[in-house]
Formats: sequence, C-alpha cells, structure tokens
Amino acid sequence: MERARSSSRAYSGKIVSLRVDEVEMPDGRRTTREVVEHPGAVGILPITPEGRIVMVEQYRYAIGRKLLEIPAGTREPDEPADETARRELLEETGYRAERIEEFARFYTSPGWANEEIVLFKALAVGGRGPTPDPDEILRIVVVDPADVPGLMRDGLIADGKTMTAVSLYLAALER
Amino acid sequence: MERARSSSRAYSGKIVSLRVDEVEMPDGRRTTREVVEHPGAVGILPITPEGRIVMVEQYRYAIGRKLLEIPAGTREPDEPADETARRELLEETGYRAERIEEFARFYTSPGWANEEIVLFKALAVGGRGPTPDPDEILRIVVVDPADVPGLMRDGLIADGKTMTAVSLYLAALER
Repeated sequence: MERARSSSRAYSGKIVSLRVDEVEMPDGRRTTREVVEHPGAVGILPITPEGRIVMVEQYRYAIGRKLLEIPAGTREPDEPADETARRELLEETGYRAERIEEFARFYTSPGWANEEIVLFKALAVGGRGPTPDPDEILRIVVVDPADVPGLMRDGLIADGKTMTAVSLYLAALER
Repeated sequence: MERARSSSRAYSGKIVSLRVDEVEMPDGRRTTREVVEHPGAVGILPITPEGRIVMVEQYRYAIGRKLLEIPAGTREPDEPADETARRELLEETGYRAERIEEFARFYTSPGWANEEIVLFKALAVGGRGPTPDPDEILRIVVVDPADVPGLMRDGLIADGKTMTAVSLYLAALER
C-alpha cells in the first residue's frame, strides 16, 4: 500500500491523461509515481463457425508500423463492456457477435498505467464489411489458429491483448 | 502510414514521456495522436528444476492493488535485454537464470504507447532472497502451473506480460 502525499496533473488529453504523484511507502520512504490514466478498453476474439479468428490489420502510429490484432476499442462512459465489444466487432469487421462471453481481463502496464482490457470471445457471424471510425484504416484478415504461432514469430501479431487472447484460447485456459 | 505534421512534448518524466502529434493519414485527412514514450521493459518466466514458476507479488500504485507477476523491469540504456532480465530476476527473487532464451515480444498498448516488452524464459536456480530497488517491496511466490488458471480467475494474475508469458508457456507455443 502506498499513499499519495501530493498529486499534480501533467496532461489531460483525448484518450490519455497523466499525473505525477508523490507517494509514501509502507515503511515511510517517499517516491514519485507517474500514472497514465486511460478509460480502459475491450478486445474481442471472434471465432467464425469454421473455427477461424477474425482479425484486423492496422497501422499503429505510436510504434510506426502495422499490426494484426483482434478487434478492440476504448471503453465509452456508460456503455457496458460487452456492448462496446459487439459494437467494435461490427464497426471494424462487419461481423456480428453471438454467444459473447468475457474470458479474461488484465492491466496492460500496471507499473505506470491504469488501463484495463476486458477480453471477450464470441461466435462471429455475417461479415458485411467494416464501417470504421474516421481515424481508422483497417483490413480484415481471417486467420487459421494453426497460423498464429508463425504470425507471432514473424512479429505481425505483436500486441499484448491479441497475444493474450489467442494464447489463452489456444491453451484452452479461457474456460 | 501516417505522417507527423507537428509534434509537441506534453511531459518528460522519470519513466514515461508524452507527446501529442498532429498527423496526416494516407487519404490526406488529419488527426491527433497521443503517444506515451517508454524505454521498453523485459519480463522473465523463471521455471525451477521442479517445473514451478517463480513470481513476485507487489503493490501496483497505478491500479491501487497487489498483483502476482513474473519478474520484470524497465530497459536500461546500453544494457542488452537478456542482461536486464537476468539482473531483474536476481534482484527481485535471488534466483539465477540459466539457459535463458527470448520467447516472445509484444507492445503493451500500441494504440497510444510505444512500450515493447521482451519476454524471456529461463531455468531458475538458487534462491538466496531478493535485493530489490529502494522503491520496490516484493514477496516471492513459487507457483504450480496447475494453479495458474485459478490465479487468473481470482484476478491475482492480471497483468498483460504475466498472462501472455504463462499462457504461451502453458499452450507450449513458445517453441
């Protein structure tokens, strides 16, 4: 347990904010903690009736390259996480989610950020094409689970939520 | 591909920095990208000769509670990632890493941060007790792999690097 002795807001933005706290540790020592505040996000692992995984390829400006990821999006105030997941799947891929269920949740970087991602899996049906946000450019890729290890090795699947979701799924740990 | 038209630094800190870029998308439209810059981190999955996983429990100020995690640490300039991993394992747990090898790397939140985590696994030998950093308070917990699903369900294992590492390991996807 660490207690804040003071807190100063360094940045308030569109998606993230940042505060810098002076904290007191249990033994009385003091240290500084930088905390990036994020509203949280959802990811959805969409499995087609044929057992394949619907993913989206998109350019990620923060790292300067494209990644192949499960559909995902930032949490919206007052929207239940499963609704956000359904909506993002539909917007990004055109697939509808049936039998949606939460199967994991995790913090992306608990050492310095409060972002939590809630992971869902669902049966993905339909597929009438995406209607992405204005600042998203997406390509839909339907992946055979057997190809996942190779896509990880090649660095195309390289984000935490997708690795976590597919590896939990492939390890059958999601029950 | 998105090109920066302008970039402004909002914060420069001890571990993270934050910049706000105005970017031009391939179709000419403009948008704003908030980017948290982080030097990157390593995580190490230490397996004892008996097949158990050495973890550390620590309070995470950013999320306000304790988590059970694999040993990890921020990258240091000019220190190879495997050296950082060995050092963090020794400092946090007292175990030495033998047969260390990289088995995955991923971006924690590529939508808004550039942090990359390199995951290693190693045979963990010894265990003479930790010598943590002054701002870390740790408890070592040696976990049976069979207990991992329950620890995830209970929310004690709840960070991306630990979930990814243990699920890749349990799925035997790390080869």
